[in-house]
Amino acid sequence: MTKINNSLHLSGASFQAVYQLSCATEQAACLAEEICIEQTIEFPKALVKRQDIKEQIPGRLVSLTTTSETSHEVTIEYPIEVAGNELPQLLNVLMGNTSLKPGIRLQSFALTPEQYENFKGPRFGRKGLRDLLNAPQRPLVCTALKPMGNSPKELADLAYQFALGGIDIIKDDHGLSNQPFCTFEHRVEQCCAAVQRAVKQTGKSCLYFPNITAPVDKIHDRTIFAKQAGAGGCVISPGLIGLDTMRILAHDDTLSLPILSHPALMGSFTVNAYSGIAHGALYGQIGRLAGADATIFPSYGGRFSTSKTECRDLVEGTARKMGQIKKSFPIPAGGLSFSRIPELIRFYGNDVILLIGGDLHRHGPDLVANCREFVRKVLDIRLV
Amino acid sequence: MTKINNSLHLSGASFQAVYQLSCATEQAACLAEEICIEQTIEFPKALVKRQDIKEQIPGRLVSLTTTSETSHEVTIEYPIEVAGNELPQLLNVLMGNTSLKPGIRLQSFALTPEQYENFKGPRFGRKGLRDLLNAPQRPLVCTALKPMGNSPKELADLAYQFALGGIDIIKDDHGLSNQPFCTFEHRVEQCCAAVQRAVKQTGKSCLYFPNITAPVDKIHDRTIFAKQAGAGGCVISPGLIGLDTMRILAHDDTLSLPILSHPALMGSFTVNAYSGIAHGALYGQIGRLAGADATIFPSYGGRFSTSKTECRDLVEGTARKMGQIKKSFPIPAGGLSFSRIPELIRFYGNDVILLIGGDLHRHGPDLVANCREFVRKVLDIRLV
Repeated sequence: MTKINNSLHLSGASFQAVYQLSCATEQAACLAEEICIEQTIEFPKALVKRQDIKEQIPGRLVSLTTTSETSHEVTIEYPIEVAGNELPQLLNVLMGNTSLKPGIRLQSFALTPEQYENFKGPRFGRKGLRDLLNAPQRPLVCTALKPMGNSPKELADLAYQFALGGIDIIKDDHGLSNQPFCTFEHRVEQCCAAVQRAVKQTGKSCLYFPNITAPVDKIHDRTIFAKQAGAGGCVISPGLIGLDTMRILAHDDTLSLPILSHPALMGSFTVNAYSGIAHGALYGQIGRLAGADATIFPSYGGRFSTSKTECRDLVEGTARKMGQIKKSFPIPAGGLSFSRIPELIRFYGNDVILLIGGDLHRHGPDLVANCREFVRKVLDIRLV
Repeated sequence: MTKINNSLHLSGASFQAVYQLSCATEQAACLAEEICIEQTIEFPKALVKRQDIKEQIPGRLVSLTTTSETSHEVTIEYPIEVAGNELPQLLNVLMGNTSLKPGIRLQSFALTPEQYENFKGPRFGRKGLRDLLNAPQRPLVCTALKPMGNSPKELADLAYQFALGGIDIIKDDHGLSNQPFCTFEHRVEQCCAAVQRAVKQTGKSCLYFPNITAPVDKIHDRTIFAKQAGAGGCVISPGLIGLDTMRILAHDDTLSLPILSHPALMGSFTVNAYSGIAHGALYGQIGRLAGADATIFPSYGGRFSTSKTECRDLVEGTARKMGQIKKSFPIPAGGLSFSRIPELIRFYGNDVILLIGGDLHRHGPDLVANCREFVRKVLDIRLV
C-alpha cells in the first residue's frame, strides 16, 4: 500500500482521564500504555504506517503515581478530536474497551471548556431545583411511592399524604413502569391530581416525579403526558434506557422537567472497587453530562455496600467544576432511617436531597405526621 | 389509611432468573430472599398492607443449590406482569437494584413464550446472515477498518483489499464515529463504493458494516445514510447508546440492516466473576432480545481476560431456545491470530464469525493475499 501523508490537523488540545490501576508496580506503566492504545487506535503501534497517527492519536501518559504495591493512579490525556463531540464516543474513549479488562477503574476526568460547551448538562441543577421548591438553603426531603402492586388510587392516596406532610419531592418507585395493575397513565394522572390537591391546602411547593423509564420510543410521549398532567419532574434510570437518551430528554425544550437519575443496572460499574467507574465519575460527572439534575445512590450505612469514601467521591463528582455545567444534587437512599438524619446531614451537608422510603411508614401509624417529623428533623439539623 | 382490597388479577404465569451467589452457605437463602424483594416491591414486607401484594408480587425462590462453601445457584421466579412487556423494565426486574449489591451475578433467564413474543429479536440471525453471504455452513470471516486517524480514502483502500481478498464482513473499528479527520459520511460513502467495486471484480458477497454508534437522535439518519450508500449492516455498541435503542433500530422496517453488537463499556458487567451479568445472559440472551444478529466479544486467549468457560457460556446464550427469537452469531475477537484459526474453529464450531484485526496486517506485506489465506485456512479447517 502506498504511504499517504494526510495531515491530521489536530488542534493540540487534549482532555484527561484518571484511572486507578490494580497491578504489580512493574506492570503499571505497561498497563497504562495498553489503555492509551486500546482506547484510541486499538491496533498494534508497530503496524501503524503513518507517523502522525502513531504520534498524535493514541492516549499519552501524563503521570503515574504508585500509592501501594498493587495500586497506581495514572493520568492519561487524549486529543479532543478522538471523542468527536458526542457523548457515546466520549464514553467510549474514557472506558469503552478498557471496561473489558480487570484491574482498571475510571476515577475522574477533566474535559476542555470547549468540550463542556457541547453539553447543556442539567437544565435545573441544584439552584434550579431549589428555586422550584422555594428552598434556597436547607436539605430537601424526598420519598417514594411504593410498593409495586398498589393501584393508582392507592399510590395517589399516599402521594396526597406525603404532600400534605410537607415532602418536597415525591417520586415513583423506579420499578413502577406500565404494569397492568397500575398503568402509567392512570398512575400519573391520579398522583398529579392528588399532589395538586394537597398543595392547594398547604400552600407549599411539592413536586411529583413519575418514573418515565420506558421503551425509548415511548419516552417522549410519556414525558409529554406527565408534563400535561402536572408532573414536577421525572425519574429516569439511564442504566436501563441509556445515558444518551437521558441527555436528549434533558435538552428537549418542549419537555423541560427536572430529572432524577436512578442507578438501576448501573451498580455493576461501581460494585467492585478494582474495575468499572468510580461513583463520582459515573453518578456525578457522567450523570451531569447526560443532564441529571439529581442523582439517587445507595448511601453508606444502608442496605447496600457503598463506603463513606465512595459517597464522598460521588458528592465531589456532583459539584466538581466542569465548565458551565451545573451542579447536580446527591440523593443518598437505600434503606435510610429517621434516626440517621442528623448524621446524614452532618456528612452530606445542606446540599442534599434525603430520600427515606420504608422507614417513613415504619415510624408510626400517621403518615402525614411522619412526614412532618421528617421535615422538622431536617429543619432542626440543617447546618447554618 | 383505609385498607383497600383491589385484586391484582395476575395471570399466575411467571418467568425465571438464575443467579450465582457468592456468600457463606448460611447467608444464601437470606440473600435470595433479598433479591425477591429488591427486584419487585423494594419495600419491607412486614409493612405491606395488602395480603395479595405480599403474596403475589415479590419474586419467589424456586431452588437453591450449593456448589461450594461460598457459591450457590438460586432460581427465582417473577410474575410476568411485573416486567410489563418492556425491555427496560425486564432488565430492571432481572438485575436493576441487585446490580448494586456485591456477590450476585445474573447467570441466565427463561421467559414465557408469550413474553418472547413481545420481542422481534434479531431480524436476520445466523441463517439470515448466512443467506446474505451465500455461506450456508462454514465459519464466516470478518475484519475491521482501523486504525483511527486514517482518512476515509485510506480506510476505503483497506476495505477494497479486504473485499478483494474474500472477507465476508468488513466492519468499522468501533472507535470510528464522526471525527474531524474522518467524518461519518465521507467514510461510509467511500468504503461502500470501494467494497462494491471489489464485489464486481470477485463476484463474491461482502458486507460492509459502518459504525452507527452515535448520539441517539442521530442514529436513525446515519443508518438511513449508510443504507442508501450501500452498507450491508451496522456496528452498534449498546453499552454506549443503550440496549433499547439497539432494539428499536433492529425492529425498524425502513432500516432493515443486520446488526453487529460491540461490547464497548459493557465489560464492567462481566469482568468480575462474582457480580454483574454472565456472558451468555448479557451478550447472548439480552443481546438477542435487543436485536443483535451477531455479538463481538473478547475471546479466551486474546488480549483480554475472558475464560474458556465464559466463552462457552456466551455461545450457549446466542443459541439457547428463546421462543421464536432467532439465534445470533458469536464473534470472538480481541487480539486473535492466524495461527489460532484451527483451534478457534474446533472450540467454536462452524457457527462462528472469526474476527481478526491486527494480525491480518502483521501476517505479510500483501493484504489481499493475507485475506485469501485467512479465508483458505477457515475453509480447510471448518468442521464437516
